[in-house]
Amino acid sequence: MTIKFSDVVVGQELPALDLTFTRADLVAYAHASGDLNPIHQDEEFAKSVGLPDVIAHGMLTMGRAIQVVTNWVGDPTAVIDYSVRMTRPVVVPDTAVGSVVRFTGKVAQINDDGTIQVELGAIFGDVKVLGLAKATVRLAQ
Amino acid sequence: MTIKFSDVVVGQELPALDLTFTRADLVAYAHASGDLNPIHQDEEFAKSVGLPDVIAHGMLTMGRAIQVVTNWVGDPTAVIDYSVRMTRPVVVPDTAVGSVVRFTGKVAQINDDGTIQVELGAIFGDVKVLGLAKATVRLAQ
Repeated sequence: MTIKFSDVVVGQELPALDLTFTRADLVAYAHASGDLNPIHQDEEFAKSVGLPDVIAHGMLTMGRAIQVVTNWVGDPTAVIDYSVRMTRPVVVPDTAVGSVVRFTGKVAQINDDGTIQVELGAIFGDVKVLGLAKATVRLAQ
Repeated sequence: MTIKFSDVVVGQELPALDLTFTRADLVAYAHASGDLNPIHQDEEFAKSVGLPDVIAHGMLTMGRAIQVVTNWVGDPTAVIDYSVRMTRPVVVPDTAVGSVVRFTGKVAQINDDGTIQVELGAIFGDVKVLGLAKATVRLAQ
């Protein structure tokens, strides 16, 4: 499926994604990204610096949020710019089920230059983990 | 080392990072992030869609760029917001040495609320891979 610029309307909701964060995901992301800070892997350390538990890397959360857009468009190179506010971290206790974050997206603006602006949401339980999250996306004409 | 708000001046340069992107990094990141699009792993596919070669995930590039800030501050939770423009992709040919990107940062603004704004740069050869990249950071008082 290819989303075309002419098919998009303001207010349109993108398919939401419920994505699970597990401790194993955090370890994999730590090694892939090079961010080995123990707050993302070591529960004892995380608690010693005042966190409720191990937290996900903000960039992992940000990277998953944009998948709402890239999955919908079907082209990861369509994203022109992307910005977020890191409101709250995704806390990842050591459970088999992991922490589920609901990522959402909505078309906020259609621009004359053939791009659109999408507003993204990221809710963990009843906590907003990203704020003011938005991406500009170029769609097929 | 802890960077204190009172120690920072506008124009101050953060230590630059030269980070290497290899094919193996892209495979690791694909699995850690869940973004398995073949343009990041399959040279033949990437070329078939008009790319010069396999390209790094934009979110991997974005994640590495912010390490200029988090390494400098010493606290990954200090980043309040982060935005980039995806100017050009990091092309990753199948070489042992990989593709080296130079990430830079400069203090652009000091805010009354105890935060600062850092402008980030990402140069691959002579190509700017991120544009308008900036982060707001809360420092220790």
